[in-house]
Amino acid sequence: MVQQRLVTLLTDFGLQDVYVGVMKGIVASVNPQLTAIDLTHEIPPQNLTAARFCLLNAYSYFPPQTVHIAVVDPGVGSQRRGVAIELADGFLVGPDNGLFSGILDRYSAIAAVELTNSHYWRSPNPSTTFHGRDIFAPVGAHLASGVDINQLGKAIDPDSLVKLPHPQLGIRESLISGLIQYVDRFGNLISNIPGNLVAEKSWGIILGDRLITSQTTYSDVAVGQAVTFIGSHGWVEVAINQGSAREKLQLSFNDKLTVKLLS
Amino acid sequence: MVQQRLVTLLTDFGLQDVYVGVMKGIVASVNPQLTAIDLTHEIPPQNLTAARFCLLNAYSYFPPQTVHIAVVDPGVGSQRRGVAIELADGFLVGPDNGLFSGILDRYSAIAAVELTNSHYWRSPNPSTTFHGRDIFAPVGAHLASGVDINQLGKAIDPDSLVKLPHPQLGIRESLISGLIQYVDRFGNLISNIPGNLVAEKSWGIILGDRLITSQTTYSDVAVGQAVTFIGSHGWVEVAINQGSAREKLQLSFNDKLTVKLLS
Amino acid sequence: MVQQRLVTLLTDFGLQDVYVGVMKGIVASVNPQLTAIDLTHEIPPQNLTAARFCLLNAYSYFPPQTVHIAVVDPGVGSQRRGVAIELADGFLVGPDNGLFSGILDRYSAIAAVELTNSHYWRSPNPSTTFHGRDIFAPVGAHLASGVDINQLGKAIDPDSLVKLPHPQLGIRESLISGLIQYVDRFGNLISNIPGNLVAEKSWGIILGDRLITSQTTYSDVAVGQAVTFIGSHGWVEVAINQGSAREKLQLSFNDKLTVKLLS
Repeated sequence: MVQQRLVTLLTDFGLQDVYVGVMKGIVASVNPQLTAIDLTHEIPPQNLTAARFCLLNAYSYFPPQTVHIAVVDPGVGSQRRGVAIELADGFLVGPDNGLFSGILDRYSAIAAVELTNSHYWRSPNPSTTFHGRDIFAPVGAHLASGVDINQLGKAIDPDSLVKLPHPQLGIRESLISGLIQYVDRFGNLISNIPGNLVAEKSWGIILGDRLITSQTTYSDVAVGQAVTFIGSHGWVEVAINQGSAREKLQLSFNDKLTVKLLS
Repeated sequence: MVQQRLVTLLTDFGLQDVYVGVMKGIVASVNPQLTAIDLTHEIPPQNLTAARFCLLNAYSYFPPQTVHIAVVDPGVGSQRRGVAIELADGFLVGPDNGLFSGILDRYSAIAAVELTNSHYWRSPNPSTTFHGRDIFAPVGAHLASGVDINQLGKAIDPDSLVKLPHPQLGIRESLISGLIQYVDRFGNLISNIPGNLVAEKSWGIILGDRLITSQTTYSDVAVGQAVTFIGSHGWVEVAINQGSAREKLQLSFNDKLTVKLLS
Repeated sequence: MVQQRLVTLLTDFGLQDVYVGVMKGIVASVNPQLTAIDLTHEIPPQNLTAARFCLLNAYSYFPPQTVHIAVVDPGVGSQRRGVAIELADGFLVGPDNGLFSGILDRYSAIAAVELTNSHYWRSPNPSTTFHGRDIFAPVGAHLASGVDINQLGKAIDPDSLVKLPHPQLGIRESLISGLIQYVDRFGNLISNIPGNLVAEKSWGIILGDRLITSQTTYSDVAVGQAVTFIGSHGWVEVAINQGSAREKLQLSFNDKLTVKLLS
């Protein structure tokens, strides 16, 4: 018997409606032993880039073989494929629209299938608008219960999976320019500049005509002051100690951020 | 031994406070093996109609014998009854104020009891303001642990359970007029016109002086355009492809919607 | 073998990001049998007083030996201690900044340790900004799995744990003046005047030039009217029947409230 696997859910459904509860009901209907853990359901509606960021940042903190079901699905009901993907450390189930491509950039897919076997769906005639309920939740629950991925549909080339583009970093002498790829609840600004480009170096960020030199944590500066460091996600991050950098610095998604390497 | 049953929770408590967490603590105190699944806690405060809609839409997706605890309870502390209801496919626990009447319109009650046996409450002296914690959560947890419904209080006639009124559909020649009964997080407008009145027919909805003909899903129209179809809930629904119909069409709860049957 | 313990989580992380999901992944990575129950994640950012209130109000509703992990942590990365605390009825894990002091005011600590043993952390080199993930979640999961608290670090004097100050009640003849210590989702105003100061007495609250006499529940007054009673938390509470006292009375956090004892 296969060891029980965990299931996680990430969607843009919010928690106002019963959509997420219904997906958990479906998971429990397939296998009452399964517990579905919420990653988040507050992805901005149909924002695949934010979904990619959040999935990547959660992925490595779960036990091996966890099944991550993700549904941010602007193309539901169209020809976009539904897929299941196997990696060394887990499984991914959802639409093939790039929301998994952050994980796939960093970890290799071992196998991928297009979800064509309706035996594992809630019914052979899924709704055209809620594949989370009718296809992805039941398929994910079956995977977590030990069904082999190859039973779920026809094998596809992992290289054919949709990838979302990455904005290029601009690297010129001592300057590295990137974008703010995510803004969290606290108003912390997370750039797309990887921490390993600056780790062990002396560096700062340029804000207007100021240079803010890097620290290790929020409280290294006075309350209300801007601070930059390699954040817990592993990227260069800008924050205000006990405040919101989004509000105070008037920066948000996709705004430019420049790191300066010192010495 | 009775098979472990699932418990779900639906309230208007929101997630800002610890009210929901406390109910889960009570459920676990009765039986640490039980897992409570959230349907939603964002029912607009004391909105029984929205609670009825959400409960009905979640009910059929859970395994048989699931115990649904629902607490939207403007009359807490007054003479309104607390009830437990048994149906072929599940149990309902909460105030007798009509919030279960969507389910009861569609599925038959096998038995109903008024919750008078304080042995199954958290204490014989419940607070007058939080029966979710003091009565409904512990009673639901006992039901889910296999206690017979008839132990929970005195049997009552299921026909005596409170029902919320339904606005009548207006049907005149080829026109069917209904109301928007629910607006979801995406701004999708869900009418009270059942899909089976239009299924297999050619139809559309009248928006101002336009007729929008029915499709099968969002992406059947261009991004930003209005679309109508039989939604995943089974009712005629109006949406904007990748947008909010609530905002774009300026329609919301209880606004009128008219379907026109074509040919 | 130690009986499995429950884990709860309380943070100010919100549910928009994956921070909470990641903590649950860590808990499950330590022990896949553990289920983490959310108390709330909507503590106003870095508001230790609200966290203290919410923890105290949830604490007593959980089974014995439940492990409560709480992370509201403005000083993360500074010298503030991380602690685990054992009480007769449960365990507490989080930063030593006073957020547990509501519980500690009412229940006695049996033992306390500073979290210095990195063997129970996610890694010996925790991030400087997310101890919830790197220290508190894994330590809490180990405690819930039966690890002895003394393994987690060096014993400290429970009296040395940080306490948040309490605003004094003003008691003068028949008047008791306190503050609004919490406002819940419904706009109910919860004072810091303990119910036991007025229980079994005749009393009311002074609102402008009106005296509102106490009732037992919301519906003891007409819809839209102000009502006061000993709330489900055990404090004097002010509400509007089927409305928001915060909005109608224009009172909120830290505003003054005066009880008058009658006869």
